[in-house]
Amino acid sequence: MQVKLAQKYGFCFGVKRAIQIAEDNRNAITFGPLIHNAKEIDRLKRDFGVTLGENLEEVQECDNVIVRTHGITKGDLEILKERGNNVIDATCPFVTKPQKIVKKMSQEGYQIIVFGDRNHPEVKGVASYGENVEIVASVDEIAQCKLQKKVALVSQTTKQIKQFGEIAAFIISQTNEARVFNTICNATFENQSAVLELSKEVDIMIIVGGKNSSNTKQLLKIAQNYCENSYLVEDKNELQEQWFKGKKLCGITAGASTPDWIIEGVREKIEQF
Amino acid sequence: MQVKLAQKYGFCFGVKRAIQIAEDNRNAITFGPLIHNAKEIDRLKRDFGVTLGENLEEVQECDNVIVRTHGITKGDLEILKERGNNVIDATCPFVTKPQKIVKKMSQEGYQIIVFGDRNHPEVKGVASYGENVEIVASVDEIAQCKLQKKVALVSQTTKQIKQFGEIAAFIISQTNEARVFNTICNATFENQSAVLELSKEVDIMIIVGGKNSSNTKQLLKIAQNYCENSYLVEDKNELQEQWFKGKKLCGITAGASTPDWIIEGVREKIEQF
Repeated sequence: MQVKLAQKYGFCFGVKRAIQIAEDNRNAITFGPLIHNAKEIDRLKRDFGVTLGENLEEVQECDNVIVRTHGITKGDLEILKERGNNVIDATCPFVTKPQKIVKKMSQEGYQIIVFGDRNHPEVKGVASYGENVEIVASVDEIAQCKLQKKVALVSQTTKQIKQFGEIAAFIISQTNEARVFNTICNATFENQSAVLELSKEVDIMIIVGGKNSSNTKQLLKIAQNYCENSYLVEDKNELQEQWFKGKKLCGITAGASTPDWIIEGVREKIEQF
Repeated sequence: MQVKLAQKYGFCFGVKRAIQIAEDNRNAITFGPLIHNAKEIDRLKRDFGVTLGENLEEVQECDNVIVRTHGITKGDLEILKERGNNVIDATCPFVTKPQKIVKKMSQEGYQIIVFGDRNHPEVKGVASYGENVEIVASVDEIAQCKLQKKVALVSQTTKQIKQFGEIAAFIISQTNEARVFNTICNATFENQSAVLELSKEVDIMIIVGGKNSSNTKQLLKIAQNYCENSYLVEDKNELQEQWFKGKKLCGITAGASTPDWIIEGVREKIEQF
């Protein structure tokens, strides 16, 4: 079976960078899950001795503390540094950016609006850098906010630009000045564009990722629009040889939280069919 | 006939202020039409000796030059001052605001987008205060612009907020930072809201204004939705007594370019019916 990988698939730049940092810092502890992928976290523990601490207390005993890709709050970071931990920052640079913006805009007297999910660690971290911060998840929520005259707006990196624009438009209608920072990262959408293109030219499409992962399911949905033989598998063990009968070209893509070594396993097995 | 005026009608704050400035400066000359209303300009000439010059040459002979409500370009203002004219500024403060914003944002290195009609004197004036300025009249036009990473956006004062928000949303999707200043003045829309309310409670509705004025026709259209006996007149001479037969309460409103003395004439005549 001939195989073709999507132009963009799997881990984004920030996640790949964080994994490299973890591999380079054997026996360190991560403050919170480094990334949202349990199998990869297990691998880092097994092969590199990198363990996981869920809170300030749990990371206390280890000198070297890795800050996860989604970042942590300003307060927690300060405590780590005061306590003398060696802080190794694996925060994605696309997350550091809105953190810095919120800090600066807050210092300049802007009310801060963060578009995102208030329970997401990235959003909690970003919001912690300002004084006068509201988190909103929708246009309905922004309509409930008491807006001031000068507002700065940032977005959680994984949000969609259309909704961000709608929230910005509402703020603009209610304020004198809206300072809007487009902090959306396109990695997720690049994976989607790539699967759309690839699924047009293949006979069968395999999507590798968690069955509960929303971005993986989204990839499957897009693929099914163009290739009726599209399947979602968590790893190579779920591949069924009968799917591939009479097919020539198999496309492969993977969700944003799927490690390369799982994808590689799938690819090797398909090539043997 | 009992009469009730709309809560908001006729001249806006900036126009009223400019007329007061002209009345206070007898025998001055205005650089461009002070406001967009020929009858009022005639009255200022007849009663206060305030004449009209269309360009730099025509205003040269008069010491006292009144800058009209819509403002003039930065270059023209500098020439007037260099030449020693006494410049009396009747620019609406709501227009001075975007002029200052464009100047400041341009100095701070932002690309400037002005949402407005490129032939309108207000827009020409506002745009003249920046170095790196594009004027766009629609979402289609902004989509043709080569946008830079840092963009500041202002609006012509009479534009609608919905379109402004759409243009802002497009800019946000294409840039790192969009600094959006809501420089829309609500006077026109306040007149529209007021006629909507008034036309619900009256037996007959009279709209005073130019038959060619787009904002006056808009008022008529709104009134007709709620009061079938709605009429547009340019002045008291066009009122027909038969319209008022069997009616008890007459509502009156006026377009944004209709002077109070014309409205007053209409009101007095209706009260005599």
